[in-house]
Amino acid sequence: MRNLTLLTDFYELTMMYGYFKQGKTNQVATFDVFFRPFEESNFCIAAGLQQAAEYLRDIRFGEEEREYLRSTGAFDEEFLQWLKDFRFTGSVKAVPEGTVVFPYEPIMTVTAPICEAQLVEAALLNILNFQTLIATKARRICHAAAPASVLEFGLRRAQAPDASLYGARAAVIGGCSSTSNVLCAKMFHLPPKGTHAHSWVMSFPTELDAFMAYADTYPDNCLLLVDTYDTLKSGVPNAIKVFDYLKGKGHKPVGIRLDSGDLAYLSKEARKMLDAAGHSDCKIFASSDIDEYVLAALKEQNAAIDIYGVGTKLITSHTTPSLGGVYKLANLNVEGRDYPKMKISDNPVKMTNPGKKQVYRIFDKNTDKALADLICLEDEVIEENAPLTITHPVDRWKSKVLTDFYVRPLLQPVFDKGKMLLKEQSVYDLQDNCKRSLDGFWEEYKRLAQPHAYKVDLSDKLYELKDALIKRERSVR
Amino acid sequence: MRNLTLLTDFYELTMMYGYFKQGKTNQVATFDVFFRPFEESNFCIAAGLQQAAEYLRDIRFGEEEREYLRSTGAFDEEFLQWLKDFRFTGSVKAVPEGTVVFPYEPIMTVTAPICEAQLVEAALLNILNFQTLIATKARRICHAAAPASVLEFGLRRAQAPDASLYGARAAVIGGCSSTSNVLCAKMFHLPPKGTHAHSWVMSFPTELDAFMAYADTYPDNCLLLVDTYDTLKSGVPNAIKVFDYLKGKGHKPVGIRLDSGDLAYLSKEARKMLDAAGHSDCKIFASSDIDEYVLAALKEQNAAIDIYGVGTKLITSHTTPSLGGVYKLANLNVEGRDYPKMKISDNPVKMTNPGKKQVYRIFDKNTDKALADLICLEDEVIEENAPLTITHPVDRWKSKVLTDFYVRPLLQPVFDKGKMLLKEQSVYDLQDNCKRSLDGFWEEYKRLAQPHAYKVDLSDKLYELKDALIKRERSVR
Repeated sequence: MRNLTLLTDFYELTMMYGYFKQGKTNQVATFDVFFRPFEESNFCIAAGLQQAAEYLRDIRFGEEEREYLRSTGAFDEEFLQWLKDFRFTGSVKAVPEGTVVFPYEPIMTVTAPICEAQLVEAALLNILNFQTLIATKARRICHAAAPASVLEFGLRRAQAPDASLYGARAAVIGGCSSTSNVLCAKMFHLPPKGTHAHSWVMSFPTELDAFMAYADTYPDNCLLLVDTYDTLKSGVPNAIKVFDYLKGKGHKPVGIRLDSGDLAYLSKEARKMLDAAGHSDCKIFASSDIDEYVLAALKEQNAAIDIYGVGTKLITSHTTPSLGGVYKLANLNVEGRDYPKMKISDNPVKMTNPGKKQVYRIFDKNTDKALADLICLEDEVIEENAPLTITHPVDRWKSKVLTDFYVRPLLQPVFDKGKMLLKEQSVYDLQDNCKRSLDGFWEEYKRLAQPHAYKVDLSDKLYELKDALIKRERSVR
Repeated sequence: MRNLTLLTDFYELTMMYGYFKQGKTNQVATFDVFFRPFEESNFCIAAGLQQAAEYLRDIRFGEEEREYLRSTGAFDEEFLQWLKDFRFTGSVKAVPEGTVVFPYEPIMTVTAPICEAQLVEAALLNILNFQTLIATKARRICHAAAPASVLEFGLRRAQAPDASLYGARAAVIGGCSSTSNVLCAKMFHLPPKGTHAHSWVMSFPTELDAFMAYADTYPDNCLLLVDTYDTLKSGVPNAIKVFDYLKGKGHKPVGIRLDSGDLAYLSKEARKMLDAAGHSDCKIFASSDIDEYVLAALKEQNAAIDIYGVGTKLITSHTTPSLGGVYKLANLNVEGRDYPKMKISDNPVKMTNPGKKQVYRIFDKNTDKALADLICLEDEVIEENAPLTITHPVDRWKSKVLTDFYVRPLLQPVFDKGKMLLKEQSVYDLQDNCKRSLDGFWEEYKRLAQPHAYKVDLSDKLYELKDALIKRERSVR
């Protein structure tokens, strides 16, 4: 296992050293991870928590790491000695993987001695940003493909090995049925998928020879790629010959794969040919630069495709390849006293929310659909049996009274004073989490183009704290 | 060290098994890695070869890997036993890292028994595509920033840990001066860079307290982030107070960093303030969503910025986050006889070039600038003392006679029958390779917008082979 302790920006270490030299090691900081409005989607699917927690659990400055830091000349021996027993001893809350989350909501809060909380910023963001990005993109692609299912095929275009492994994991959380990536399948107990490429066909004298050889090798899992020479004149007719042969021997052929050309036209023609030859059971797989926009267009033209293989556009989140999750100081506890912190900015969008927080999702008792989310201070209790007034976080004249509701806290304990509480769940269980979380929202919030705006409000207490801090800061200037 | 042997698409393994069962294990395949025209740049900077070669060198199906493959139920015991001693025994040529490369040119050729050559497709593409993508983006960003230098800062937005590590490596090959990523710096012997964040400032009662504490900790490496509250009214004046203090004690302050607001305006105002206070030596660093397009705009307005920190837009190649490198069968040797192979398509852009190849770069003897590249068959010799006629690969009526030239082969030996010949070079040496390779081109080819088209032609022999294969294929149909 790789030691990821040094997977951090150098300034996290120079700041740690500064806190250490300034005698601030006992101060306890609370940081929130949240993302700002994401141009591609009104909500995200949280993912990456398991790897984030394992990273925190395994932080160790071993001999090699300390020797390296010594070699930079930026730290003294006292600090390097102190790193020897350095562990993550903080408390963490986070939303479970697969949860629908909205901009500005903390998806993780880290409360730890300031040196620990500072060190982990960059790696936590790296892990959570990427997997959340890909789970979100996968949700969009699977939404557009439904009822067809989607396989993740992106290894060769993923941004380095880890992106292929953790990206495929996140893709399954977001709704993909599995992946072609064998190492990912091994790591996360998924069934690896795939059959053959054009090179298989090209390595035999004829396409029919190649198909027959493949059928001999995998008579019960025979899926044939039919576009090496000419899909409708050569590929599909040859596949039908092989399927006839397999059926005659008592096997059940799986289907064909299209990887180029006009997928709407070719799939409909191939469907007719397969049906006419008595192979209505055979599925049609398709791949070729597919994303949610292509899927919408293919659906409009009734493409006869049962399963999509999606590569580049999913594994890189091609249209928007980064999620701008940030890690912001919300509270500093000095000698037992809390000092709520926030970033003040002339731009209200860049202001952060101060204090230690919890997020509640409010559901309608009659429909079990979400009505709004409320970002609160950690110690607030929401009375479910009384009417609740929620107010817009900026335009305070917009408010709404809710009755007949129940609430669920989104942030769940992950670490308690250094002890990891999170239990690993299978990726398909996380996919179920995601489905359940999505089921809690009306379709109007989930459509891909111009979805309805969902309310994420601040509690009155949080609003008042924020307002007071802004006023105090502006009076100081 | 992670075992990356299973970092492959499942179909590579099912094809291997098929070749094995069909008795084709002695057939020797040659595959080319090349990319098609890349929308963002007329050329790329090759990168990732070191990691690609290490991957090939370390392929092993250990007990754990074989046990996993057994569990899939897709392979028989004979095959699993055969995998036990499986090693990469092939020969590989590739262009050195840092080399300017153009669409359709093989940047790597793999000649190996077909099972080996098939297995490695997905991982080689993953490694080469990503690092080449980022080195190419870095070259563009550094070109736009010059004479200012560029630091790589993208860890928190990189697509998973590996992307931050290998992406930063590739960014340095493409011209960045170093990285903030500590683990990358450790792995590749780069100086890690960074000072402090907003959270440092927010953790002290006042900005001045925070700056003083930082100056105390790093008196000889004092770079202050000045935009936490108000850049020109608070940040820069406080930094000047601290720099005065440091100078009084005999230290040389480094400078300030801007991370928000209008960087052109703020940098020019901050420059005036620093100069007026006698701190002309202090540098101005800037970061905030920068890429080559923003840099061009800032340069136009004479921003007074010495060093840029570039994160998200570089480490993800945000405007185009994938390079479509492919791995195509070019030759199959069966019982000692070569069968050149190519993909035939109705779309000439999708046709591949058959046969075992070499690429020559042709330089003008008088200027040492590149005139054209010529893709040839491997055994062709170019006579440097005779006039050379080069012809457009599609429009054959376009041709040109070259005299007074010399040629350099681009593809260099990396593996010879399983023995790795590549010697690891430092990343800064690879950066030098890149500078030298770029120096071989006129500026007209290197400008970012609408660069002049560079000639990449096929030799007559290669053209004739391709033409014959196309005609034969079309006559068969």
